[in-house]
Amino acid sequence: MLLCDIGNTSYHFLDKERDFKESVATFDPSSVKQKVYFISVNAQVSAKLASLENWIDLSLFVDKSRYYESMGIDRVVATMGIENALVVDAGSAITVDMVKNGVFCGGFIYPGVNAMQKTYANISPALAYSFNFECDLDIMPKNSQDAISYGYLKTLYLELISHNLPIILTGGDASKLKKIFRDAKIDAQLIFNSMKKIIKENEDNLC
Amino acid sequence: MLLCDIGNTSYHFLDKERDFKESVATFDPSSVKQKVYFISVNAQVSAKLASLENWIDLSLFVDKSRYYESMGIDRVVATMGIENALVVDAGSAITVDMVKNGVFCGGFIYPGVNAMQKTYANISPALAYSFNFECDLDIMPKNSQDAISYGYLKTLYLELISHNLPIILTGGDASKLKKIFRDAKIDAQLIFNSMKKIIKENEDNLC
Repeated sequence: MLLCDIGNTSYHFLDKERDFKESVATFDPSSVKQKVYFISVNAQVSAKLASLENWIDLSLFVDKSRYYESMGIDRVVATMGIENALVVDAGSAITVDMVKNGVFCGGFIYPGVNAMQKTYANISPALAYSFNFECDLDIMPKNSQDAISYGYLKTLYLELISHNLPIILTGGDASKLKKIFRDAKIDAQLIFNSMKKIIKENEDNLC
Repeated sequence: MLLCDIGNTSYHFLDKERDFKESVATFDPSSVKQKVYFISVNAQVSAKLASLENWIDLSLFVDKSRYYESMGIDRVVATMGIENALVVDAGSAITVDMVKNGVFCGGFIYPGVNAMQKTYANISPALAYSFNFECDLDIMPKNSQDAISYGYLKTLYLELISHNLPIILTGGDASKLKKIFRDAKIDAQLIFNSMKKIIKENEDNLC
């Protein structure tokens, strides 16, 4: 069974235990001949997949009524089965979704690490640094690299801790954010595990 | 007397009472024949101005020893003469600088309104919205426009109020941020007034 979580920049596959990524810009989904269960937030890719019979859109089996209409299916799937937590999916964007007593309570979207680094670099070449995830967030910075790192990270940090909820990190940059959110739990397989659950619950229709 | 505060995207002039902007991309500074007192964070523009005798670089008259080396001169000038405040200059970037008892205590840099809107739009066309500055920051959003507005604004809001200092807003987007920081004071002329002070204190050398 092949699973695929399609984002803005990558196809993220899980083939049994092995996960790997392919670029949205270059990968041809018709090159895959086996059955693929997928979710996608990428409208262009979704349009391509509509004509490929072996690509099964799991979003059709998800009850989206408790979420909002334009909410990305990855966020819906990531929060399914959570009882109480902030679910933080750190990819091209960082999505932060709140679940209390099993009920989705809203969420917000922050730019991902790479996107935000590019933003600073585009504002001025003097700000073209990688973020310093070891930056001391307890004091106001006095150098340019920390000034942008603090700007990106301290702001996000204060918002997240203000909710007094456990934090679950997933997505490609989860381990970077773990340096800031030291008590957070990393669950790299969160979305794939939810997708497996959807398949299991719908096996009569899907197999 | 013509003053000019040169940023990453604009020449911001003050001609007596009238202020106006010219684009860094298209404006030819040699077209100005009168004396211009300027500060610049734009290395390319500064290089051009070095050969123009009527453009006087005020940064040469500023004691930068109490600031850090790569800090933008606009931030240095904006915080001069402040006793206790967070000085927020909302332009291409939003710079936030802390002054306590007249001493600069560090600062950070956050992307400006336009830069951040572009960032979200580049991540996904589904996030290509203008920010909603009326967004309720007390509840987690349940629509895409508020999800990015909250992501941009609530994070910044929590950081700034955590310092319990008066907030002074300046720069082109000061009035937008005033909707979030309701107790803040807008001082549109902060940098120009500081520049006038530098000129006055150095009139023997400058005139």
